[in-house]
Amino acid sequence: MLQNDLLLRAAQGEKVERVPVWLMRQAGRVLPEYRAVRSRAKNFIDFVKNSEMAAEVTVQPVTILGVDAAIIFSDILVIPEAMGLPYQMIESKGPWFEKTIVSQADADALRITDGSNLKYVYNAINLAKKELQNSVPLIGFCGAPWTLLAYMVEGSGSKTFSKAKKMLYTQPKLAHQVLEKITQSSINYLKLQVEAGANLIQIFDSWAGVLSPEMHQEFSLRYMSWISDELGKKVPVTIFAKDAHFALPNIKNTSCSVVGLDWSINPVEARKILGASKVLQGNADPCLLYANLEVIEQQTKKMLSVFGNEKYIANLGHGLYPDTEKEKVKFFVDCIKKYSLQLNDEKVHA
Amino acid sequence: MLQNDLLLRAAQGEKVERVPVWLMRQAGRVLPEYRAVRSRAKNFIDFVKNSEMAAEVTVQPVTILGVDAAIIFSDILVIPEAMGLPYQMIESKGPWFEKTIVSQADADALRITDGSNLKYVYNAINLAKKELQNSVPLIGFCGAPWTLLAYMVEGSGSKTFSKAKKMLYTQPKLAHQVLEKITQSSINYLKLQVEAGANLIQIFDSWAGVLSPEMHQEFSLRYMSWISDELGKKVPVTIFAKDAHFALPNIKNTSCSVVGLDWSINPVEARKILGASKVLQGNADPCLLYANLEVIEQQTKKMLSVFGNEKYIANLGHGLYPDTEKEKVKFFVDCIKKYSLQLNDEKVHA
Repeated sequence: MLQNDLLLRAAQGEKVERVPVWLMRQAGRVLPEYRAVRSRAKNFIDFVKNSEMAAEVTVQPVTILGVDAAIIFSDILVIPEAMGLPYQMIESKGPWFEKTIVSQADADALRITDGSNLKYVYNAINLAKKELQNSVPLIGFCGAPWTLLAYMVEGSGSKTFSKAKKMLYTQPKLAHQVLEKITQSSINYLKLQVEAGANLIQIFDSWAGVLSPEMHQEFSLRYMSWISDELGKKVPVTIFAKDAHFALPNIKNTSCSVVGLDWSINPVEARKILGASKVLQGNADPCLLYANLEVIEQQTKKMLSVFGNEKYIANLGHGLYPDTEKEKVKFFVDCIKKYSLQLNDEKVHA
Repeated sequence: MLQNDLLLRAAQGEKVERVPVWLMRQAGRVLPEYRAVRSRAKNFIDFVKNSEMAAEVTVQPVTILGVDAAIIFSDILVIPEAMGLPYQMIESKGPWFEKTIVSQADADALRITDGSNLKYVYNAINLAKKELQNSVPLIGFCGAPWTLLAYMVEGSGSKTFSKAKKMLYTQPKLAHQVLEKITQSSINYLKLQVEAGANLIQIFDSWAGVLSPEMHQEFSLRYMSWISDELGKKVPVTIFAKDAHFALPNIKNTSCSVVGLDWSINPVEARKILGASKVLQGNADPCLLYANLEVIEQQTKKMLSVFGNEKYIANLGHGLYPDTEKEKVKFFVDCIKKYSLQLNDEKVHA
């Protein structure tokens, strides 16, 4: 049904004609077209909640950059809000929660959402799917329960998330209670995303890297694994645990189809650890796109040749940085397309 | 000559009676005694430049916490300042440079310091050595050239250091010129630290983790390696590349004696990669010290048993967090001492 289903087939482990590519934060400030829509919204949260605007910026990078998938424009923190913990997005500062989770009473007051109070996201998915006219797949997403807990306890971004980690060390039972509630809410939310038309799901564990290997296994990966078990029956699931190089052997044992890699990971090592069963996604340094075209081209070719053409989805190792030039982003996407085809040709001729 | 030379002997790879322990940021805000001295200084930089005060807080943790070494109280950014790029330390924000390195002219204007304009540090070392009365060794230190460049280009702390990384991608020659100047300055500075009495040297690569493996090798490790080659003839050198798990195979090939590990690193894996020739240092999660005594004791025992008693220096995987309770820090130090002795006993009886 999809005209270009490269990403979907690659995520399912199938052989594809060329490596599919999309970019984390592809819908965002690198596009003047995004900024034009954004400027019409009162603030970031209103923007996220406006299904028409969200759908519009979701589709933009497909048309403008030629990526092989759209990812629904939203925010990972809609889940805490849907559970009763609202937040603000403060310009150039990041998220801020007026109320944080400190006590048992705070944890008890959190609702498990059945997902019904997140209709604006499903509406945005519906609209984006219509606008996409079956051109490419649409990716749905959520934050990893640990990453959401980190914000809900810390109350804002942090270099160390030491307040949130303190809870794991001093109130582990309380942490697990909240993590369970977040996980159940996320599963309900993602199932409705899939019902609305999401073809794949990615779980973003943005703050995986602040945890020790044991803590990550206990407080983060087991919940991502649970989400993957529930959703993976419906659509391919990607786990992206940023800065958690140590987690790869454990991620191997989850049901996820795709493993997102940051740029600190050596692709050859990752393949060795994860075996042939997982699809790899990543992992160019977002700062590569500051370089001149020659360097971008050379590094992109190198990345493709190291990952190989099979069981691979090209992407960055993290989201695009806002001050990246749009033309360079487009050039990177074009390089992926051009050289992954060439690699295939070389294989045929070899 | 030193009454307790456990750390020095362990760093040189010798067998020791028990595992030595010190803590990154042991001279700092966890100690009320430190805060009392700090409150007498006008600001952080005046504090660092006051040799008497610096010596006093250097010695405090030896007396109060019972650690096996002092580390000179100073700041990694004294080197940029000595090279002609002054900074301010803004309360609860971190360092801030009015002028940053952007152009060739900026790079050319940087002086290579022969170390003579950093006398306040050597004076502090002299004073601290006198106060220590040969009780324990004193550690000198510097920032890794890359980490210093990161601040000098970025102008302040950053989550991504994308401005500094942009220079590596767009002006690599310029970056190398500045890195060379920083390296030469650091070597001069460290040699004078050793002359003043530093018994070991640690290089802090705090922002190693934002670089890709190749970039870290090219722009960071080669300069740390150079410093290690120059200083290692005099005293044991420790390389601590925070969040640079990927760098371990390359660190193995440097002349350093000790490798600092953050808490994301599995000690067994590190030993496998680094072989028997390097001494390992680390790597408890600083947040462990938020836990209750039972958990601290259990985790510390576990850490000791995994690292083993030989070629190991106990420490955290990063600096102490300011809101850690002093009593818990002391308990952690005591646990190391108690259980590493016990391990040795067990070995004898086995």
